[in-house]
Amino acid sequence: MASRPTVIVDPWPRTIGLVFTPKTRERLEAMADLVIHEDGRMPDTMLDTALPRAAALIGQSDMPADRLERAPHLRAIVNVEGNFLPNVDYSTCARRGVSVLSVAPCFSVPVAEMGLGLAIDLARGITATDRAFRDGSEQYGLAGNRRSFLLTGSTFGLVGYGNLGRALRPLLTPFGGTVRVYDPWLPPGYLREQRCVPASLDELLASSRVIFLLAGVTEENRGLIGRRELERMQDDAAVVLLSRAPLVDWEAFVEAARSRRIRVATDVFPQEPVPPGDPVREVRDLLASSHRAGGIPEAFRTMGEMVVDDLDLILQGLPPVRLQQARPETAGRYRSAPGRSYAKETTP
Amino acid sequence: MASRPTVIVDPWPRTIGLVFTPKTRERLEAMADLVIHEDGRMPDTMLDTALPRAAALIGQSDMPADRLERAPHLRAIVNVEGNFLPNVDYSTCARRGVSVLSVAPCFSVPVAEMGLGLAIDLARGITATDRAFRDGSEQYGLAGNRRSFLLTGSTFGLVGYGNLGRALRPLLTPFGGTVRVYDPWLPPGYLREQRCVPASLDELLASSRVIFLLAGVTEENRGLIGRRELERMQDDAAVVLLSRAPLVDWEAFVEAARSRRIRVATDVFPQEPVPPGDPVREVRDLLASSHRAGGIPEAFRTMGEMVVDDLDLILQGLPPVRLQQARPETAGRYRSAPGRSYAKETTP
Amino acid sequence: MASRPTVIVDPWPRTIGLVFTPKTRERLEAMADLVIHEDGRMPDTMLDTALPRAAALIGQSDMPADRLERAPHLRAIVNVEGNFLPNVDYSTCARRGVSVLSVAPCFSVPVAEMGLGLAIDLARGITATDRAFRDGSEQYGLAGNRRSFLLTGSTFGLVGYGNLGRALRPLLTPFGGTVRVYDPWLPPGYLREQRCVPASLDELLASSRVIFLLAGVTEENRGLIGRRELERMQDDAAVVLLSRAPLVDWEAFVEAARSRRIRVATDVFPQEPVPPGDPVREVRDLLASSHRAGGIPEAFRTMGEMVVDDLDLILQGLPPVRLQQARPETAGRYRSAPGRSYAKETTP
Amino acid sequence: MASRPTVIVDPWPRTIGLVFTPKTRERLEAMADLVIHEDGRMPDTMLDTALPRAAALIGQSDMPADRLERAPHLRAIVNVEGNFLPNVDYSTCARRGVSVLSVAPCFSVPVAEMGLGLAIDLARGITATDRAFRDGSEQYGLAGNRRSFLLTGSTFGLVGYGNLGRALRPLLTPFGGTVRVYDPWLPPGYLREQRCVPASLDELLASSRVIFLLAGVTEENRGLIGRRELERMQDDAAVVLLSRAPLVDWEAFVEAARSRRIRVATDVFPQEPVPPGDPVREVRDLLASSHRAGGIPEAFRTMGEMVVDDLDLILQGLPPVRLQQARPETAGRYRSAPGRSYAKETTP
Repeated sequence: MASRPTVIVDPWPRTIGLVFTPKTRERLEAMADLVIHEDGRMPDTMLDTALPRAAALIGQSDMPADRLERAPHLRAIVNVEGNFLPNVDYSTCARRGVSVLSVAPCFSVPVAEMGLGLAIDLARGITATDRAFRDGSEQYGLAGNRRSFLLTGSTFGLVGYGNLGRALRPLLTPFGGTVRVYDPWLPPGYLREQRCVPASLDELLASSRVIFLLAGVTEENRGLIGRRELERMQDDAAVVLLSRAPLVDWEAFVEAARSRRIRVATDVFPQEPVPPGDPVREVRDLLASSHRAGGIPEAFRTMGEMVVDDLDLILQGLPPVRLQQARPETAGRYRSAPGRSYAKETTP
Repeated sequence: MASRPTVIVDPWPRTIGLVFTPKTRERLEAMADLVIHEDGRMPDTMLDTALPRAAALIGQSDMPADRLERAPHLRAIVNVEGNFLPNVDYSTCARRGVSVLSVAPCFSVPVAEMGLGLAIDLARGITATDRAFRDGSEQYGLAGNRRSFLLTGSTFGLVGYGNLGRALRPLLTPFGGTVRVYDPWLPPGYLREQRCVPASLDELLASSRVIFLLAGVTEENRGLIGRRELERMQDDAAVVLLSRAPLVDWEAFVEAARSRRIRVATDVFPQEPVPPGDPVREVRDLLASSHRAGGIPEAFRTMGEMVVDDLDLILQGLPPVRLQQARPETAGRYRSAPGRSYAKETTP
Repeated sequence: MASRPTVIVDPWPRTIGLVFTPKTRERLEAMADLVIHEDGRMPDTMLDTALPRAAALIGQSDMPADRLERAPHLRAIVNVEGNFLPNVDYSTCARRGVSVLSVAPCFSVPVAEMGLGLAIDLARGITATDRAFRDGSEQYGLAGNRRSFLLTGSTFGLVGYGNLGRALRPLLTPFGGTVRVYDPWLPPGYLREQRCVPASLDELLASSRVIFLLAGVTEENRGLIGRRELERMQDDAAVVLLSRAPLVDWEAFVEAARSRRIRVATDVFPQEPVPPGDPVREVRDLLASSHRAGGIPEAFRTMGEMVVDDLDLILQGLPPVRLQQARPETAGRYRSAPGRSYAKETTP
Repeated sequence: MASRPTVIVDPWPRTIGLVFTPKTRERLEAMADLVIHEDGRMPDTMLDTALPRAAALIGQSDMPADRLERAPHLRAIVNVEGNFLPNVDYSTCARRGVSVLSVAPCFSVPVAEMGLGLAIDLARGITATDRAFRDGSEQYGLAGNRRSFLLTGSTFGLVGYGNLGRALRPLLTPFGGTVRVYDPWLPPGYLREQRCVPASLDELLASSRVIFLLAGVTEENRGLIGRRELERMQDDAAVVLLSRAPLVDWEAFVEAARSRRIRVATDVFPQEPVPPGDPVREVRDLLASSHRAGGIPEAFRTMGEMVVDDLDLILQGLPPVRLQQARPETAGRYRSAPGRSYAKETTP
């Protein structure tokens, strides 16, 4: 039927089964004719055949200007991997009114909860104590608590205040302390409305007991947290790295943990999987999480719901509200590589 | 001078240096003449000599009826160990208007934060992943997250709602889920005012994804969580034990973790220190914390501040507000043994 | 039956029907034999006859020491009027272990909500605009908003932090501003735990845009807010009086509103009902509420529930948790007269 | 200098002095060359002369397609009146990458606070009591509280969940009740993330004690709340109208208040100023606010800050974050007329 929209589904390196539950897939099928490639990347010919009638594309297929030209009815491209990569001609999309959307927000709450968990662990030594308990060297009560501190009343610093920062902020509220934010893309008045204290990076580093590194990686901020910045931190500060490893000078970061100048937890590494013999595996004061902060089963269920919700709005002529919309101003700046392991992800 | 009050300080098994910082000790000295025994338990003769002029006693000295009789000016007994033990004749104190106070509230926020940290760890596998990372068996992304779940939107159950429950409740607020409480000493209307849902124990066990065991141990509730109650829990429920081990049928509790029926974290054990070869040390799904939830340095600093604040009020003829007041109705019912290790605690 | 407790119900000047709904009365009857006087004050002979077997008394009957002596089984006196008056020998009760309880907490949330409503009205001129609208002199938009200000980001000051302050504090949280408290009965550490900033009275008055007067009246604080204190307030401060009129120098308080030095709202007056020709009725910048902040139908429904909940606990040998317990230290100090109009209150 | 951007400032019907404080104007002058028309609407020739070099336009000047063509460097149009009117060719702007922004968000918090104040007034009769007090007919205590109810535990319903709803939601949090939302432009999952319960309009009307009407007016929702919808409301529901009068069937709405079927407060009227003899002025149960909810001095100070903050970002090549961005999908749908009185607004 002429009036029924067509949606192309090419989720590689994710799979259909990972992105959609039976229920969300059913909703999607009810609203559009689907052109689906279940296995691996969709062949170019299949994609090119479908584009002329497509209202939306779900996936990370390459969409340079010339291909966009062949899709006159296209209204949305939904990236289900989560990072805005240079596979799309963002400015052509903006000019054409094609919304480019990312599922990144479905990972925000999972990452924020993990961030809080890692921070409490650094403050209280949960992992270290359990390890000691297993080898019989645990200490009880105050004797085991020499380095423990409370989050209540601590000072917090957030480097970057995008999806992750906005999801983390309310989790810190019950602890009552000042939350400083450094984000050069956001004006002070915006941050104050979010109940944060705008700060320069140096002020933040010097005044925060607990620091969350949340900024996506761009050309400008690669290596933002280098030796100089690590030195500005308080002695024994607790630092949680959640966004991407290139945000820090990795060698200096690991060294600061090894020397016990600061306490460190990280969900990301310069190379993933971390090579078997990497010495980072031996650093006692570095709490390691293997890129697990975001990709939990509930995140993927939410992902499909967000995609279908927003496509539904777009096909009705309404603005999307759940996914993150690429801004032509910034989409081209991100340099976050996708997680190395996603290709192996299958249905939860 | 006749009008200057006398305060006896006999903090054993704690020490003066642990209870008071230089600053709180200075405040104490400014408000009263102190009779202090620094080292070990105060000799009876020293105590008996001071009692006739004492306005307050800080410590766990035995205070049976006959000794209380010899202390006509006594207005407060401040237990700095934290548990109401049978060392005091509570009904005589009540009749005489002697407030018996405990420093237990100084541990509430530290225990609540640890409880949240243990719950996030059970939900996300922080400790288990770090352990895997050190032996090279970690898994990345979704592959490592098969059992992970969010606290956001989870159902919570609190067994017991005293100091600990009241400190934990606000930490759960940002996660937005229902918080059920079972506490036979508290009427439903009270719990509703606290934004909790009153529940029977069975309802709570069956409907909560995350369960916190917080009740102090009394004659009535020893073994409250037995095999039957463990069976009522949801498959894969996360259970955090924070109060005292006798609240649970220990063998069944450990077995439920070993068989992976539920996930368990505990800060307390039937015997502390846990014997070297105790098989509990090998249970992978039991996250072990060696009675470290409450006794952190900040708790001890707060302890001294609370003691001096309340003594100041009492000596002015005002009611104490920071410490927990023994109720003659319930003080005699508690059977929580003190932590085994406190005698070794010294100044932080 | 010998083991069934007896409870005396003498609620005058309230009535049974006001204090208990059919449902709470039924609960009460299920737990005890009741000796009830429905109409007016219970005759002394009736009271004296029942006392020897009474486990509890609900009402404001006079209970001097000699009468308490005749009630050997008495465990609780529940004042359903709300103020601790000198009708009870509080120190004998304390010595005897008789809990003296007040229903005052049932009014806290209603008073707090009214306090917030009055504060927003002072900030935004709701009442004044509606008045102007009725006489055709209203102004639109900014022209009508010259004196309007936001609560968000304002500084708040609470004079007194008892039941009312604790109920008001969370209502101010979303506005994000500093909440200063002056309460000489509470140490700074207690107030900080409540997320308040302890302050001297002068500091609070000088730094708060919105001031809530919440302290109960004692011998010490009568006239606490006098001319000197009114002068310390910021120009155009908004002041909400919710506890009792004698807390302020009434003449100076009204004059400060009349001269538009400050904005004032009050729920209480030195004489109630206010005399017909009282000039306070003409003061445009004084927002008047006729002692209506607490006594709403829901408060009375909660009152009965609180009374029955706590009696139930007491008869089980457990401590009460919902009503306010008289402290021998302070019960004798209060001088708040009851509201003048309560005798006229009947079933909602 | 060639590289210094040009910004056109044509704020009519507002004035420069209303939109910018000396401080925000100074910031604006530091970042761009300004073409300013201080008095009345900018003449077309002046505007047309400046457009070829303009990077941004602050004001509501007509910008049809042909004029946009003459502004090749234009990156932003900032509407400082607050409503997206048909003065701009939104789809051309979208295609060209010209952000069209509105200052509407600066009014959200003021409107939300006023909305809460009006709701408490309806619940507690603040205005009505003050009116009675002035004519000597006030009633004290419960006698004056027959119709009073608490917000705590009430059910809330929000019709429309845009800027206003998002600002109001956190103010309702301390009252703890369910917040239902009807907004056909938002999917259920989005509303749940905001801690709201998605509802159909009928469900919301039938189950909410307090209803806030917040939706902007579009072709589709004109008269949304008609006789049928008013009849679905609970007896004695409290209804607060904050967006625009055409959202309701005005005659039926006023009649429902007059007959005391429901309680009503409104900040808007079909004709403003309301004609002198309009019978709405006599309706006792209609609380009237003369379009004063948003336009307070602080809102205008925030307005200028938001404008300068976002222009600063845009001129740096970053996305704006404080103002509301017109969506081509919906900008054309709004039919809210601006407030009638804004032309008279001058510097606060």
